[in-house]
Amino acid sequence: DNCRCAQCVNQDTLQRNFDTFAIPKDLSPQEISPKNDGVDVLWSDSHKSHYPWSWLSLTLRDISHKKLANQEKLWGATIASAPPEVRFDDVMSSTSPKGLADLTSKIRQYGLCFVTDSPKTPEATEKLLETIGPIRNTHYGGFYDFIPDLALADTAYTNLALPAHTDTTYFTEPAGLQAFHLLSHTPPANKPADEVLGGQSLLVDGFHAAETLRKESPGDFEILRKVKLPWHASGNQGVAIAPDMAYPVIETNGGNLHRIRWNNDDRGVVPTDIDVDAWYQAARKWDEILKSKESEFWFQLEPGRVLIFDNWRVLHGRSAFEGLRRICGAYISRDDFISRWKMTNFPREDVIASNMQLR
Amino acid sequence: DNCRCAQCVNQDTLQRNFDTFAIPKDLSPQEISPKNDGVDVLWSDSHKSHYPWSWLSLTLRDISHKKLANQEKLWGATIASAPPEVRFDDVMSSTSPKGLADLTSKIRQYGLCFVTDSPKTPEATEKLLETIGPIRNTHYGGFYDFIPDLALADTAYTNLALPAHTDTTYFTEPAGLQAFHLLSHTPPANKPADEVLGGQSLLVDGFHAAETLRKESPGDFEILRKVKLPWHASGNQGVAIAPDMAYPVIETNGGNLHRIRWNNDDRGVVPTDIDVDAWYQAARKWDEILKSKESEFWFQLEPGRVLIFDNWRVLHGRSAFEGLRRICGAYISRDDFISRWKMTNFPREDVIASNMQLR
Repeated sequence: DNCRCAQCVNQDTLQRNFDTFAIPKDLSPQEISPKNDGVDVLWSDSHKSHYPWSWLSLTLRDISHKKLANQEKLWGATIASAPPEVRFDDVMSSTSPKGLADLTSKIRQYGLCFVTDSPKTPEATEKLLETIGPIRNTHYGGFYDFIPDLALADTAYTNLALPAHTDTTYFTEPAGLQAFHLLSHTPPANKPADEVLGGQSLLVDGFHAAETLRKESPGDFEILRKVKLPWHASGNQGVAIAPDMAYPVIETNGGNLHRIRWNNDDRGVVPTDIDVDAWYQAARKWDEILKSKESEFWFQLEPGRVLIFDNWRVLHGRSAFEGLRRICGAYISRDDFISRWKMTNFPREDVIASNMQLR
Repeated sequence: DNCRCAQCVNQDTLQRNFDTFAIPKDLSPQEISPKNDGVDVLWSDSHKSHYPWSWLSLTLRDISHKKLANQEKLWGATIASAPPEVRFDDVMSSTSPKGLADLTSKIRQYGLCFVTDSPKTPEATEKLLETIGPIRNTHYGGFYDFIPDLALADTAYTNLALPAHTDTTYFTEPAGLQAFHLLSHTPPANKPADEVLGGQSLLVDGFHAAETLRKESPGDFEILRKVKLPWHASGNQGVAIAPDMAYPVIETNGGNLHRIRWNNDDRGVVPTDIDVDAWYQAARKWDEILKSKESEFWFQLEPGRVLIFDNWRVLHGRSAFEGLRRICGAYISRDDFISRWKMTNFPREDVIASNMQLR
């Protein structure tokens, strides 16, 4: 079933070329011959398989994850002194993938990266994002370029303050990456041009907050990890979106933090068949960590400085503002982003061997 | 936290308008007054909440799911005699949502529906699909219109036979709906026009197959439900997609069948820390059920007859063919489809109340 020979694996698509279930049940190896580049196995149906050493080494030792691992660097408010950034021209270079590798690697490490010296246009921003992956369509559209408009029926499209949250908690698969590029911020007619207009941006490292919760209050962490909640988007005419099932605030995979889902405004009713008081107690503690000075990274978005962040890890918010802000950006699916990160930072054969044995 | 009053819930977006965690911990009800349309509660901080009876009834009795339930009708080969269908003009009617309600309801019931008397153009097909939900972008693009081309590095783009499979097993969230519209099938230059060209289409109800497996061989069912496998798409230059984690072939939610993920060609290596023989045994049984005459629904795609099916439930395949086939279609995310189904088949307030307490 795992034979790597050119007859068994389509060398273009790397898909199986044969029917696993047509292989005789009682097949056994007749002859095993180590070669320079791998091992040949002659089977009892006289098929000769070839397994490269590199393949066997990845498969048998299960080191694939370590090989592709990227140490996450958890952060608090102090990230403000030196936030991760890369230059637009480096990412868009047609001669070297290094800039794109750097951008995707920084997003993997920190959950965010700024792209500096970007052209201050929606067109250039869209091209930049498309180098990472295809733009995700939702009921709000694909690439967006907007000024506040409550016709879109979500508080995001107002000028109100927004506490730190993740986007699209109501999707089965929440948006992977999110990008914001502030193209302009013009004061209202009755204000002088040098007035402070507000609209500071806020980011919080949800993985840092979750690890803090796990350390300070492991019982609360477990409650937010275990209790599955309903999430919904109900503001748009003819649209009422909910995920395929209930999901917890904190998702883990093999003990590691995997995904944060948190928007208190879009949260449904806490299920009544659990200890409701205990859930609210845990959520209070979580909310307190998210809103602590040590967690919050505040900054001002600027034209030419695109923010891209991992919506499965980093929460975002903003202060209230006056005047009109024009912001463009988009969602990119996490699978496409992870694919681009792997393919620009690791050898192709390691990526594919790792994907074929993902835990 | 669940107050439904106009001050607490934004009546446009139906989002919370307040900070749950700013509510005093020791809040208690002071006065409870039943009214005609619901119950008023005066709290110790002097906020007066209103909870409509309809809301309480849905929340407390947990009847939401039953209310929106749509009886799945499992099927085998005999569906060929009367497959579900709706007329294009009925779906596209600007005066009545009944056709769209009928289409989405049939897809929910049977996992598929044909749209008959459709204009034989990609433009009309795209418009039809967009009435259900936004078209999903992938590394292959959005709406597609293609003839076989191995440059796209997947066996789907060849003229080979394909056994029954689900698409995009390698995404965290596999495609929800998939659509095919055969626009033309022209014979190769050396063949007479009346030659049989092949390219019959195959559908198999994965839920029916899974229930058969559960009945005939419950142990095998459990193995396919429990063992999480890697899936991958590795054929395209610069792209190597895998889901966020390993997923089983059969996913359930509260005992009910939820999602089938099956493409043996894209499957990774069976994990070595489980009983590998038992997994292959279970997969052999599963494969046998999928390939049985009783399971297979064979038919010929025709211009003007669009096929839309639920890729979380129904497997598709085809026989080999000669000549050139032009097929257009698209993926639609499941969340968008379910939203459209609910909103066209149930009262809005029931949908939203149900989404807010989804299990």
